[in-house]
Amino acid sequence: MAEKLPTRREDFSEWYNQVVVRAELADYGPSRGSMIVRPYGYALWENIQAYLDKGFRQHGVRNAYFPLLIPESFIHKEAEHVEGFAPHLAVVTHAGGRELEEKLIVRPTSETIVNDSVKKWVHSYRDLPVLLNMWNSVVRWEMRTKLFLRTSEFLWQEGHTSHTTFAEADVFALQMLGVYRDFAENAAAVPVIAGRKSEAEKFAGAHTTYTLEALMGDRRALQSCTSHNLADNFARGFGIQYLDRDNALQYVSQTSFGLSTRFVGAIIMVHGDDQGLVLPPRLAPTQAVIVPIWRKEGERAQVLAAAARLRDALASTLRVELDAREGLTPGFKFNAWELRGVPLRIELGPRDIEKNQVVFARRDTGEKSFAPQADAAAGARALLESIQANLYARAKKFMDDNTFRIDAWEEFKARTAGEGGAGLLLAHWCGKTACEKEIQEETQATLRVIPFDQAKEEGRCVKCGDRSEGRVVFAKAY
Amino acid sequence: MAEKLPTRREDFSEWYNQVVVRAELADYGPSRGSMIVRPYGYALWENIQAYLDKGFRQHGVRNAYFPLLIPESFIHKEAEHVEGFAPHLAVVTHAGGRELEEKLIVRPTSETIVNDSVKKWVHSYRDLPVLLNMWNSVVRWEMRTKLFLRTSEFLWQEGHTSHTTFAEADVFALQMLGVYRDFAENAAAVPVIAGRKSEAEKFAGAHTTYTLEALMGDRRALQSCTSHNLADNFARGFGIQYLDRDNALQYVSQTSFGLSTRFVGAIIMVHGDDQGLVLPPRLAPTQAVIVPIWRKEGERAQVLAAAARLRDALASTLRVELDAREGLTPGFKFNAWELRGVPLRIELGPRDIEKNQVVFARRDTGEKSFAPQADAAAGARALLESIQANLYARAKKFMDDNTFRIDAWEEFKARTAGEGGAGLLLAHWCGKTACEKEIQEETQATLRVIPFDQAKEEGRCVKCGDRSEGRVVFAKAY
Repeated sequence: MAEKLPTRREDFSEWYNQVVVRAELADYGPSRGSMIVRPYGYALWENIQAYLDKGFRQHGVRNAYFPLLIPESFIHKEAEHVEGFAPHLAVVTHAGGRELEEKLIVRPTSETIVNDSVKKWVHSYRDLPVLLNMWNSVVRWEMRTKLFLRTSEFLWQEGHTSHTTFAEADVFALQMLGVYRDFAENAAAVPVIAGRKSEAEKFAGAHTTYTLEALMGDRRALQSCTSHNLADNFARGFGIQYLDRDNALQYVSQTSFGLSTRFVGAIIMVHGDDQGLVLPPRLAPTQAVIVPIWRKEGERAQVLAAAARLRDALASTLRVELDAREGLTPGFKFNAWELRGVPLRIELGPRDIEKNQVVFARRDTGEKSFAPQADAAAGARALLESIQANLYARAKKFMDDNTFRIDAWEEFKARTAGEGGAGLLLAHWCGKTACEKEIQEETQATLRVIPFDQAKEEGRCVKCGDRSEGRVVFAKAY
Repeated sequence: MAEKLPTRREDFSEWYNQVVVRAELADYGPSRGSMIVRPYGYALWENIQAYLDKGFRQHGVRNAYFPLLIPESFIHKEAEHVEGFAPHLAVVTHAGGRELEEKLIVRPTSETIVNDSVKKWVHSYRDLPVLLNMWNSVVRWEMRTKLFLRTSEFLWQEGHTSHTTFAEADVFALQMLGVYRDFAENAAAVPVIAGRKSEAEKFAGAHTTYTLEALMGDRRALQSCTSHNLADNFARGFGIQYLDRDNALQYVSQTSFGLSTRFVGAIIMVHGDDQGLVLPPRLAPTQAVIVPIWRKEGERAQVLAAAARLRDALASTLRVELDAREGLTPGFKFNAWELRGVPLRIELGPRDIEKNQVVFARRDTGEKSFAPQADAAAGARALLESIQANLYARAKKFMDDNTFRIDAWEEFKARTAGEGGAGLLLAHWCGKTACEKEIQEETQATLRVIPFDQAKEEGRCVKCGDRSEGRVVFAKAY
């Protein structure tokens, strides 16, 4: 803990790597690309899970579990799907001491194995919709590792739903994007741009991929989640048909949607500062930490007793911790909790006890304030709400300040020159994949999202000059 | 749903298989030994998770996540461990389109990969204890499948802790057994016998394995969970040492403990009857179901409205569902909910509405009773408590009635003859593994548990006649 973090300006990437490990969110695993999520990081993930799970349930989605190992032939049943995933698969060839007749794939995503069952369960329109979700991990082989952002195995949820019509599936995919957006903005305080992916960037096997794009502190974009309208692409591959009200056989229309521990990376990179993590209060494993302060040994017992009473008074409405560790200075503890991003620090010393007060120190602004001990709980809750709102406002302003309308190709190239992030570039695009690829090759910027709420605006593609009907978002991205 | 279940007496195994599938707890997956946990079964598992998780947390255990894929060399670092697990491993040989330099094992349990990290995190006695738990799935290849009881992949939790001393680890392993026992008896209403495993039956790599043994409805025993004192067996293999207060290097002492979806099988087989599942109220995904009853079409709207009001009145204190499905008779619905084991059915018809009453029907006894609508919530809660207590008492009586003190080998053989279960056989045993093996070979009965609370009693081994100091529990088991 003694060494200082690099500043974000000096080396954002190294700042990130050190924050993740030193705040004990995660650590590197032994095999390539693997990650250990430590208790502090996992508690954050559990809070993310709880918030999202409630959102899914409100739409009738129910949790289930499907096998980890998928027969290789399943992956081949949807042509685009196999093409997208084949290079990243981990393959079990031996089990129980023998070579397997059919290889098994460690699940990279579960569309295929879910569909193998849905086919057995769905016969009539009365069996629809089927609204399933899984919390699990998936394996997609990666050569480069970045904790939370790019690992060979990651934790996520994957939703899989089947519906009677294309329109119903489309509405549902958008509703799930709404669950994600509510989570991102209201729980994680991460502003996002909602829209759809281009053909080149959509999920392997999807008709349409909806997404939320966020901007990180180094001005790179990050895809926060995806929600896919799969149409009947997988249903045809797996032969999932139902009898409609007129007794005619129809293919089901499907969706899938996922959000992963990648989002933990977004929280770190959107809110963190040079002292370390800054966690949004609604997701923080510890919302407030009480640091007792004494100078003379004689004060110790009284201060610790008062601090324990304060913790007990707060514990029913807050996730609060008391740092009663011996042999560490208050200053050391302040730094440690700042590194871990706890939103609110509560200091309590002999003079505070005399005055019947506590000292609040906000993690986001560093501001200090005082409150009578009797009002500590209400005061802390109000401050946490204020911190939550401030984190969102701050991140939104940063995103707005780094969103640029670009009309000339030279300007586009200038903005994206150099190593760092380039913000969000709102530019006209002709709709052609070839043009999108050329932009990427020349600038490393990719088409992140075709936003829902762009004003219709006639224009000319920033690259080729062909006609365009609206701006899309390009960015250098994770 | 139309066909009747086989009775438990006719064919317990087939009764079990059909209950699991027809109650929609689980289904067979496509590859050998794989299982799909459907939403109803998964909701039951989530309730099990919530109860246990709270128990672990009260002892300071925190959740984390370790990688699925374990380098093959890790498995070899504890000699007994590799011997026990090698025949059941699934092996990833290829990933990312290439053959791997070192094969990766799909985790069969995580002692090895956890220890690889604990070694990095632990340096001093101040870093101890490390109290970790994971909710995940593990793969242990099986040739025969039985849903929940024997599958190649199963869901479980695995706890892994490190301590300064052998004694502390031993106490902790026993505390975790206490968490399991509280869960089994008070949440699942499953009576158990607590004790330790024999040398032959203990976990591969453990110093001592503690366990809870339960008796199923077919008089076969089932191991409900295990909690291991690992001593420093793995710590030596992985070189996990810490500096103690006297600055001397010591190996850590460790525990691990697990409970799996196997316990769902125990709940089914302990409480189920010829109509299907009977779920203990504290774990039931749906505790009470309201079935509205009308004979004339004109009554329908009024009854459904009253039923919806009743559901809303109950929903704040109970997990309640309203079965408002159209086109199904009340009798059909009764059977369907009985099959699914919902503890309490609440009937509501026009005459009940007139009389301002509801009809309660208990799943465990079939008893019906009436309550004023205004008291429905309190009445339902009281009945659920009564059902919970009755399920435990009934299962305890069944276990006691099927526990036999056996002193003669001929009697032991007679009791264990034939195909079915044989109850719990309390017999003297000399302590020799050879004798234990002979008993198993001749009778299929295995030594399930050496109980904690057997009176010390001098005796003679039921097999060889050598001296023994107490009785142990033999049984034919799952």
